[in-house]
Amino acid sequence: MENINKKIQISELRQDLVTGDWVVIATGRAKRPEEFAAHKREAVEEDPNKPCFFCQPEETGQEKDVLIYQDENNQWSLRVFPNKYPAFSQGKVIRHFEEGPYFGMDGVGYHELIVTRNHGKQIAQLDVFRVAEIVDAYQERYIDLMNKKSVNYIEIFHNHGKEAGASIGHPHSQLMAIPVISPYVNLELAGAELYYKSNKKCVYCTIIEWEKEHQKRIIFENDDFLAFCPFASRASFEVWVIPKKHKPYFERISAEEKINLAEALQISINKIFKALGDPAYNFYIHTGPCDGKDYAHFHWHIEILPRTSIWAGFELSTGIEISTIQPEIASEYLRKI
Amino acid sequence: MENINKKIQISELRQDLVTGDWVVIATGRAKRPEEFAAHKREAVEEDPNKPCFFCQPEETGQEKDVLIYQDENNQWSLRVFPNKYPAFSQGKVIRHFEEGPYFGMDGVGYHELIVTRNHGKQIAQLDVFRVAEIVDAYQERYIDLMNKKSVNYIEIFHNHGKEAGASIGHPHSQLMAIPVISPYVNLELAGAELYYKSNKKCVYCTIIEWEKEHQKRIIFENDDFLAFCPFASRASFEVWVIPKKHKPYFERISAEEKINLAEALQISINKIFKALGDPAYNFYIHTGPCDGKDYAHFHWHIEILPRTSIWAGFELSTGIEISTIQPEIASEYLRKI
Repeated sequence: MENINKKIQISELRQDLVTGDWVVIATGRAKRPEEFAAHKREAVEEDPNKPCFFCQPEETGQEKDVLIYQDENNQWSLRVFPNKYPAFSQGKVIRHFEEGPYFGMDGVGYHELIVTRNHGKQIAQLDVFRVAEIVDAYQERYIDLMNKKSVNYIEIFHNHGKEAGASIGHPHSQLMAIPVISPYVNLELAGAELYYKSNKKCVYCTIIEWEKEHQKRIIFENDDFLAFCPFASRASFEVWVIPKKHKPYFERISAEEKINLAEALQISINKIFKALGDPAYNFYIHTGPCDGKDYAHFHWHIEILPRTSIWAGFELSTGIEISTIQPEIASEYLRKI
Repeated sequence: MENINKKIQISELRQDLVTGDWVVIATGRAKRPEEFAAHKREAVEEDPNKPCFFCQPEETGQEKDVLIYQDENNQWSLRVFPNKYPAFSQGKVIRHFEEGPYFGMDGVGYHELIVTRNHGKQIAQLDVFRVAEIVDAYQERYIDLMNKKSVNYIEIFHNHGKEAGASIGHPHSQLMAIPVISPYVNLELAGAELYYKSNKKCVYCTIIEWEKEHQKRIIFENDDFLAFCPFASRASFEVWVIPKKHKPYFERISAEEKINLAEALQISINKIFKALGDPAYNFYIHTGPCDGKDYAHFHWHIEILPRTSIWAGFELSTGIEISTIQPEIASEYLRKI
């Protein structure tokens, strides 16, 4: 039993303002912030006798680069290539199929890997300029793929550590361009639209305004971005990085904003890295879909989810995540780092 | 890289007929069914010098039993007691709270543990009579709690193995009686109602009829229950156990149905146990809420989710799960065991 607090406290159910979903903050199972530091990520197993797939992509049979950045010494610093084992891959047409009452379609799309050169340096350890390069690549690949036939949503995400689903140790992000709008993004889009209709205001702008005014959950802020632990966090030490001005679409980010995003993202991840002792985590961008419809009510952002606990039967069954620290306590701890 | 199939195949996007959610069957990453057998669950760490919390609950400071069954030798065979570290616990009233735009409430409810006696025998290894006893306890506790003030939904679930979130090695199920209807169940309720309005038929009855007619995904059947791999499986080797007749509410299960449920559940889990080499898994019951409203369109069922892969950034971000085997292939493999 991993609990320090024997006294039963009543936990809290908190509602996500955007989606209406519930989370539980189970304070009766509370740990002190510093106790989360035991969650060092597990390394992905690597065969020391084999070259890393991503250190020498041309020699280990990866697909051809679709983007390559070079550093001041004319060495590659970042490259993007299609995933050799894609979950979505290019096809000429999308075949839709029915089987009695069921419906499906081909998983046509794009699945790319965004790889930084240094095998041993993760985002928490990179300087801001290198992180800005990653953001550059996200944007460049997004713009290249967003108008492709059959691409209606582009998901950009990063898995760090085995418990977060990384199967290759070398730091990399992934991009999947897919033909459907994903259910979670749909929930946010619907929530944002509903809130706008009721309140004549963007729900994310409302959150930003409240957080800035009350400074209870903010961990970092610069000219363009705010980083904070959301009121209804889905995981302990969850952090959102969000543009302070209303912006529906990630891909329209400006050059200056990119530097500020890189700073906010790097600092947030670095704080989590230090606070929890290099935990496994995922982050991903939620942005307005590229299906040609208008998503002016939406407000793009990045969600960072440390993987300090396993979602078990309750979470899988209900969609209600249980975390064991209040975001107000987590953010206070992160802020001080 | 865990892929055997170097040829890139187009994967499939399949839509869940009830919720409208999407899953991906990534056949380009396919493994043969027998290769999943490497997914033996990790044992929960146990201190051999300390008594097991659940073998001797009275001696290890657990809460008092709320239910106890005895065997033919007057030894306890199953007991239910409140979780010492509850995610939901009893409170006199639910305090609702607002913080600016946000809303929350106390996590008032019940969180109980349903413990079978034998430390070393999991459900896959129990005889049907012992599993029927577990089902009995589920029903008895459900009925006792369903009319309590503040209880609107009761979630019964089982975590097996560390990767499935079990923190105690001794086999046990859990019950959480909560004040809100969970988001996933809401999606199913809404999907079932919508389908009924459009088709004048229960969506689950439609599925059962189709599966019985085509025998592509069924792994076991008895008089009352069907066990099959769903068309839009969220995980490789996912199995649903569902009453063949239209039944909205689990707690109204009859004595005879309970035996048949125990058989269908035990055989399904045993097949997964043998096929995948004792993997971690979760199962849970989805049933009509106990909030006093009418859920006649719903059809209760059990979902069993083996944990053979980790949901990573894509799944957390999108809500679209990727599995690597077609349910038709998985069910063929399970059927033969």
